[in-house]
Amino acid sequence: MSWKNELTQYMELINKHLDQVMNMEKEENYILIDSMKYSLFAGGKRLRPVLALASYQLFANDLNNILPYACGLEMIHTYSLIHDDLPAMDNDDYRRGKLTNHKVFGEGIAVLAGDGLLNHSFELMLGHALTQPQMEPYVRSIYEIAKAAGIQGMIGGQTVDLQSENVKVSAETLNYIHLKKTAALIIASLKIGAIIGNGNKEDINNMELIGKNLGLAFQIQDDILDIIGDQSKLGKDVGSDQEKNKSTYPSMYGLDFSINKVKELTNSIYDTLNKYGEKAIFLKELCNYLVDREY
Amino acid sequence: MSWKNELTQYMELINKHLDQVMNMEKEENYILIDSMKYSLFAGGKRLRPVLALASYQLFANDLNNILPYACGLEMIHTYSLIHDDLPAMDNDDYRRGKLTNHKVFGEGIAVLAGDGLLNHSFELMLGHALTQPQMEPYVRSIYEIAKAAGIQGMIGGQTVDLQSENVKVSAETLNYIHLKKTAALIIASLKIGAIIGNGNKEDINNMELIGKNLGLAFQIQDDILDIIGDQSKLGKDVGSDQEKNKSTYPSMYGLDFSINKVKELTNSIYDTLNKYGEKAIFLKELCNYLVDREY
Repeated sequence: MSWKNELTQYMELINKHLDQVMNMEKEENYILIDSMKYSLFAGGKRLRPVLALASYQLFANDLNNILPYACGLEMIHTYSLIHDDLPAMDNDDYRRGKLTNHKVFGEGIAVLAGDGLLNHSFELMLGHALTQPQMEPYVRSIYEIAKAAGIQGMIGGQTVDLQSENVKVSAETLNYIHLKKTAALIIASLKIGAIIGNGNKEDINNMELIGKNLGLAFQIQDDILDIIGDQSKLGKDVGSDQEKNKSTYPSMYGLDFSINKVKELTNSIYDTLNKYGEKAIFLKELCNYLVDREY
Repeated sequence: MSWKNELTQYMELINKHLDQVMNMEKEENYILIDSMKYSLFAGGKRLRPVLALASYQLFANDLNNILPYACGLEMIHTYSLIHDDLPAMDNDDYRRGKLTNHKVFGEGIAVLAGDGLLNHSFELMLGHALTQPQMEPYVRSIYEIAKAAGIQGMIGGQTVDLQSENVKVSAETLNYIHLKKTAALIIASLKIGAIIGNGNKEDINNMELIGKNLGLAFQIQDDILDIIGDQSKLGKDVGSDQEKNKSTYPSMYGLDFSINKVKELTNSIYDTLNKYGEKAIFLKELCNYLVDREY
């Protein structure tokens, strides 16, 4: 099977599971559920859950064990986008070519939809962990995700990012933002694959290392595309970083340096993945695709 | 020891533990931590954590087992207030006589501080659960809290509440809001005391029943005080519900009916607590105080 077919299969599995867990009885709060679903099914790339599945398959086979956590990761990613798009934050009207959540449902519901997705992610994962006779790796994975999403992870990165608009930041601060805002959740996605798949300590460390390199490469590529990308493929405005005076790798180090940095990080990822032989082909292709994408 | 002294002791324990878990290394995200602490230490009554401790002491003694979950409840309660106060929601400038979070830190940071407290609550509780040889009751408690705080709990209630401004709601909708927005987290506070204290099924059901009655009584009393309360004691504007055309028990059923309803609910609470004899004296006094308060 080609890796693209495998990717399609993974995405279908993830979308089906998300659909199932969001298919709840409609009570008086239906507008909240509609608003959560609107953003959850707005055409996201499912990067984090796919990474979790791909990492897991290096160590184990039964995907049912990892799906609730993969979907939990996607819910957390989606909530962070909804809150990030709010007028008080990035103030974006469009995402992936569609109106942002608050443009459709209003700011109040958008705040609650984000809260709802974050909270529901934990509800989903905890509900699964409780059914497992060997609870430890599952609870440990939820804890890893919580830390990665938290105040010393993604939310911390968003805070520093928000405070850095229209400010020339240091190289350290830029790295802090990339590592926390983007990489943290990608690292967690890869790590929980090893934890739930019963990988050993070295495996978990390997997945962490790949996540760090991939997270940074992915962010730099994002910022490169904001300069040289095709708006119709990206589904969002090109040049918005410059407009907002955002510090990025290209703005700090130039375009050529940034493109080379992505290549260097990709090679590091390959080096680590080579330890896993043929099993790692899908993850290799996926990483290559992510840092070489045009959208 | 008088019950008021016991209450003071509980509150000191809770504040000390909150202080400890929020005493983290200052990194670039310090404004986020400052903002979270501002609201967490803004003089809250610590109702939910105190209820968790009081319920726990009906079944067990070592308070260290319940403190992380009690503090997790307070973080969730605090985040809900920060988001509730936002201009897109209730648009309140003051809470407990102090400026609301977004008035001090700006809307963007206030959104992130709320997200941070919700996420950190899970981080704190999961981190503790992982250290326990018998993980099940702890993980079950976190799950109970997640459900109570979630889209079919508190966030669901906030959604319906937000949509009910300037709208005449039905009795069913008003009950939905009270049960979800206010009672759900109070119910969870009492339930996890029994779960972590290794109470039996009947105990857990008893705590749930008390929580339902107390949550409703507490909310009705809140709405009564909004009409007849003393602004200087309350630390917030009186008459704000009427101003916003909020549906409340007093506005739907009248003041006398509401006052009687509180009494009726209080008697139900006593009936259930009588099953626990002398051990329940503190919880009885506390419930009486909460529904008979002037602020």
